[in-house]
Amino acid sequence: MSPSYVEQDSAFDRDMNYIPDRITRDSTQWPVQPGRYRLVAARACPWANRAIIVRDLLGLQDVLSMGLCGPTHDVRSWTFDLDPGGVDPVLGYERLQQAYFARFPDYPRGITVPAMVDVPSKAVVTNDFAQITQDLFFEWRDFHRPDAPDLWPDDCREEMEQVMQRVFTEVNNGVYRCGFAGSQEAYDEAYQRLFTALDWLEERLADRRYLMGGSITEADVRLFTTLARFDAVYHGHFKCNRNKLSEMPVLGAYARDVYQTPGFGDTIDFAQIKRHYYVVHTDVNPSGIVPRGPLEDWWRTPHGRDRL
Amino acid sequence: MSPSYVEQDSAFDRDMNYIPDRITRDSTQWPVQPGRYRLVAARACPWANRAIIVRDLLGLQDVLSMGLCGPTHDVRSWTFDLDPGGVDPVLGYERLQQAYFARFPDYPRGITVPAMVDVPSKAVVTNDFAQITQDLFFEWRDFHRPDAPDLWPDDCREEMEQVMQRVFTEVNNGVYRCGFAGSQEAYDEAYQRLFTALDWLEERLADRRYLMGGSITEADVRLFTTLARFDAVYHGHFKCNRNKLSEMPVLGAYARDVYQTPGFGDTIDFAQIKRHYYVVHTDVNPSGIVPRGPLEDWWRTPHGRDRL
Repeated sequence: MSPSYVEQDSAFDRDMNYIPDRITRDSTQWPVQPGRYRLVAARACPWANRAIIVRDLLGLQDVLSMGLCGPTHDVRSWTFDLDPGGVDPVLGYERLQQAYFARFPDYPRGITVPAMVDVPSKAVVTNDFAQITQDLFFEWRDFHRPDAPDLWPDDCREEMEQVMQRVFTEVNNGVYRCGFAGSQEAYDEAYQRLFTALDWLEERLADRRYLMGGSITEADVRLFTTLARFDAVYHGHFKCNRNKLSEMPVLGAYARDVYQTPGFGDTIDFAQIKRHYYVVHTDVNPSGIVPRGPLEDWWRTPHGRDRL
Repeated sequence: MSPSYVEQDSAFDRDMNYIPDRITRDSTQWPVQPGRYRLVAARACPWANRAIIVRDLLGLQDVLSMGLCGPTHDVRSWTFDLDPGGVDPVLGYERLQQAYFARFPDYPRGITVPAMVDVPSKAVVTNDFAQITQDLFFEWRDFHRPDAPDLWPDDCREEMEQVMQRVFTEVNNGVYRCGFAGSQEAYDEAYQRLFTALDWLEERLADRRYLMGGSITEADVRLFTTLARFDAVYHGHFKCNRNKLSEMPVLGAYARDVYQTPGFGDTIDFAQIKRHYYVVHTDVNPSGIVPRGPLEDWWRTPHGRDRL
């Protein structure tokens, strides 16, 4: 049986209960240690994409290994179908679910990426995507590359939290609220909320190169992973179709600017992204057919944002 | 039970068997007569839209009445749900099916618009959409308005037939071939065919204001009714998403030019069009939710085609 993503007659409500454990410098149970943990992600997933980008930007590749699940998953779990033999070479698992069950044998919630897995016990430590990237910055500092960007600048932290909160509820989650709306009314409201927020971003970024000013921060990482998927899936599959991202002059140029920054665009695999949404959400797209469009060349065209 | 539009594992194949009767000047059974026939159409349907436009362009409103079905229909038939009491005021029918059954009590095929109905017998004469507009031009000439356009110019008739044939198989029907493809392979092929044809049109219209040159012909009517629906439904709902029509400089300007010509844009009701496709095709869009986008302002922006 296929899982159901659209709940009839109701608005989409994301389950935000994640495993609250953290890997920190001072933790006795889960201390930061090079080589001890494995980030399990999927190129298709916007929430996992954040962790892939931050790990790259901070230069943590050598101390934190990464396993990648394929773009589709069945009702039970994300699977390591891209790996030789369909098995993650470090964990020896076929499905990410095994790492969750190694920790909680009767884990009742969805098996999500990103997940930080403790390699010795092969058990998941946490799947709290927002905390994971924050901790990669603050807790793993000793292992950052020397010229790692300051993704959480002190001097604008308060405003940045507000921006990220609005981006989360209205944009990152807003596209899902459109796509999984269980009624016309829920969809209509979600659509208005989403495009109100995109108009706000169009205005905010008119005279700022990045969300918080002249440098890339965690806020940009979080916005980017949704924008990267906008025209490819959210516009059609989730009915976020007032306009394409490519039709918004400022936000479109901003998205290309970030895409063309090392550590961002090179984590994007449009084929996997499209395959994930169009194949997994069988109640939105019963045929499972994956659209061939849109053209991707747009992402590599000049953005002209250097002047800001 | 909902009808099925997508046939698993196969390419879409349009049933082209229509009632072949014709209303002609010399017919004994169905002679052209003012006031005798009723065109039953629906603003949602591209095939019916042709007849609505041609009737307007030729000024046949006073001799050929028109009934309009609502945008959605059930498994049995298009219905007159827009009329007071849900009944066509001339025919007294609730559903177009009744006109088909009045002619053929066990009519086995789909109940389609446009349909020409004989008012005295309340029976359908023909639903052959391509023949209907051709006959409105050649057979109803005595009733055209004095300045009616020459929709079928003699001097380019042969080329026009070729253009219309290619537009029909590759574009008018091509979008349905994408949307109702029963396999990834069938869709991929349909997508390539469609955009190959749109690229051909982009080139053909670069130095011609209309498909056959400086004047609007039946070929433009036939292309327009598909282009009018492209960004609103075919781009997302049918996965015709290499690009929007609005992203094609020439074809987009051409479509706006025709839209802004009296008799064309005023027949277009985007709300009905979207409602039709997104509600009727339950196997493509099970939620029945109708997207709010795209913005329609684009259609009324300057096209700059007058210079051609």
